[in-house]
Amino acid sequence: MYKINDNYQKLPGSYLFSTIGKKVNAYSEANPDKQIIRLGIGDVTQPIAPAIIEAMHKAVDEMGKAETFHGYAPDLGYEFLRSAIVKNDYQARGCDIAMDEIFVSDGAKSDSGNIQEIFAQDNRIAVCDPVYPVYVDSNVMAGRTGTYNPKTEMWSDVIYMPCTMENGFVPEFPKETPDIIYLCLPNNPTGTTITKSQLQTWVDYANKVGAVIIYDAAYEAYISEDDVAHSIYECEGAKTCAIELKSFSKNAGFTGVRLGYTVVPKELKCGDVSLNAMWARRHGTKFNGAPYIVQRAGEAVYSEAGKAQLKEQVAYYMKNAKAIKEGLKEAGYTVFGGVNAPYIWLKTPEKMTSWEFFDYLLENANVVGTPGSGFGPSGEGYFRLTAFGSYENTLAALERIKKL
Amino acid sequence: MYKINDNYQKLPGSYLFSTIGKKVNAYSEANPDKQIIRLGIGDVTQPIAPAIIEAMHKAVDEMGKAETFHGYAPDLGYEFLRSAIVKNDYQARGCDIAMDEIFVSDGAKSDSGNIQEIFAQDNRIAVCDPVYPVYVDSNVMAGRTGTYNPKTEMWSDVIYMPCTMENGFVPEFPKETPDIIYLCLPNNPTGTTITKSQLQTWVDYANKVGAVIIYDAAYEAYISEDDVAHSIYECEGAKTCAIELKSFSKNAGFTGVRLGYTVVPKELKCGDVSLNAMWARRHGTKFNGAPYIVQRAGEAVYSEAGKAQLKEQVAYYMKNAKAIKEGLKEAGYTVFGGVNAPYIWLKTPEKMTSWEFFDYLLENANVVGTPGSGFGPSGEGYFRLTAFGSYENTLAALERIKKL
Repeated sequence: MYKINDNYQKLPGSYLFSTIGKKVNAYSEANPDKQIIRLGIGDVTQPIAPAIIEAMHKAVDEMGKAETFHGYAPDLGYEFLRSAIVKNDYQARGCDIAMDEIFVSDGAKSDSGNIQEIFAQDNRIAVCDPVYPVYVDSNVMAGRTGTYNPKTEMWSDVIYMPCTMENGFVPEFPKETPDIIYLCLPNNPTGTTITKSQLQTWVDYANKVGAVIIYDAAYEAYISEDDVAHSIYECEGAKTCAIELKSFSKNAGFTGVRLGYTVVPKELKCGDVSLNAMWARRHGTKFNGAPYIVQRAGEAVYSEAGKAQLKEQVAYYMKNAKAIKEGLKEAGYTVFGGVNAPYIWLKTPEKMTSWEFFDYLLENANVVGTPGSGFGPSGEGYFRLTAFGSYENTLAALERIKKL
Repeated sequence: MYKINDNYQKLPGSYLFSTIGKKVNAYSEANPDKQIIRLGIGDVTQPIAPAIIEAMHKAVDEMGKAETFHGYAPDLGYEFLRSAIVKNDYQARGCDIAMDEIFVSDGAKSDSGNIQEIFAQDNRIAVCDPVYPVYVDSNVMAGRTGTYNPKTEMWSDVIYMPCTMENGFVPEFPKETPDIIYLCLPNNPTGTTITKSQLQTWVDYANKVGAVIIYDAAYEAYISEDDVAHSIYECEGAKTCAIELKSFSKNAGFTGVRLGYTVVPKELKCGDVSLNAMWARRHGTKFNGAPYIVQRAGEAVYSEAGKAQLKEQVAYYMKNAKAIKEGLKEAGYTVFGGVNAPYIWLKTPEKMTSWEFFDYLLENANVVGTPGSGFGPSGEGYFRLTAFGSYENTLAALERIKKL
């Protein structure tokens, strides 16, 4: 008789955003007249930029003619896209990353979930708390997290690095030495970040203790301050300790287009074993490339027209972020983030729990946000709002919140 | 110090098609004047059908306008696609499969590689031999296959079910009882298949011994004979023992478009645990949906115009298959397959090994095929040619082979 992977049974409840979706649907069905404004899940609302639409139409046409049809893509992704990535995201910032260190994928969520596969089961992971749930859940599924304590909402074998008001949302080196450190900067969910020199201390720490950093740079396009690194490879020594994950979802609105990439430097080695070669093997065996049309869309992100249009799109969302931050402050809330990231992290009022505030906001303002506790125990008492709505909806949501 | 997943180190050589690609590139660079005809990797050559191109253009336009923009897709895939799948691929064949048993993905290769994750590590897998390499390699990566014997090219903990001339390429129930049985029918690489009543005996066997069948139906569209099942759910009792994987790569030429789906029936349970719920959790945690544009392309596969155009496309490739089969017979080769599948499986002449014949064909006819031994030890002495080239190239390749 076959047996299942028991680790799945350890997962408490369902994936955070599925739970939110179900709650909102239930409310919506019971109250069909209410106009719900969704500032919960980090999904974008602005349409794909014209330069990218044009590139996709062109690629669709190519797929319709035998002479220009494209079948299976090269394992790592098309060179036209990888060279645009290298040039714009790395060389332009003085980072020496080569084409064959870039692995194009169907998105950073898949990569975030899959990257742990190339590590041994008995590695100890460290995560910021609160944190994007996929890092922990994918390690639970792999049996790397020990047992779950429903009271503390913590896993026995996970090292948590609290990021709260008290430490300015800057993770501290943990007491126990981790093997794999997940860092998402600028941060989801808190919307905060750390300086380049603070990041350098993490790179030095990882190199010293022999840890690998999984660096999620999905929100890099929202950085507005000069002393914040856009890539971990801006830090000296990062190529011997860090893997970087990048998304096109937030900088170019590709949540429904699906594209991302992972950087695994060739200098990153565990003894003699190249992690670049391991990831290449994983990529070649269990994945078959992002669609040609989507890779052409990715290339257009780096065109002159694309860059100009996306700069405007990012500015649009950051105008929302500013409006939310200032509006909530006026309404008496304590708020964080929103300067280098499209997320606003607020303290729930009157000691409400995160889920109490979720229900309160849904029922009384018909606004959907994300409960901080869904991201980890140190997120309790906090709440996330995203700047990814339309400007009109964002202002409308704020008006409703101010009236509460 | 972090540690890697040592199972990766056990993998011999590189992924089969990467090796072929490298060999062909090397030959091509050394002989730039030679016109190489590729009948190796199972990649298609016909352009995407007009009805699908039209649907993609429409979807691209939708993505460019705020009112019709689509962000994150529903976890299981859009209902418009899942309902078309249910209606056309299942209800039309009398199979009672529900919408929430369909999981839309970026392709059957990803699903083939990932599906093993929901099973315990100590399950025993059984595969046909020869076999699509992903089934075995993904289990090697998960540590489920024991040790590799380079002499026999077999894994100590894998149950091999030889499919050769001698048994008419019909797998026999293994002596040892497997937990997970991979069946790809019509078969890649042999191009052969089994009858519906033979498949029924496998379903009965799996239910009896408590095994789960991973049924890869990627080549279903090429079935031309009446007594062959298009879905395993045509067999009685399959819903309690089988997961079905489907691809759009071969029936609609989506190798570069990327779309597939997996069926996990709700009746499929291990004790109390629903495998449908497990796969839903995996899908929701480590994947973020196929692109909206691609899901609309998938919907168009089932439109009246799409169906008519794809019927022609399949017929085009099957004309190639017939030409290869008859041409090779005329040239004195012993050939199999090509009736219900787009693959021709031939005995190598003069007791050449599969790789010897690969080199011989590449160097003397400039034709690329796939060495049978790359699919498993029982593939030694065989060779695969695909019908996915253009008709002109297929005929040209045959002329060259006949002249050898």
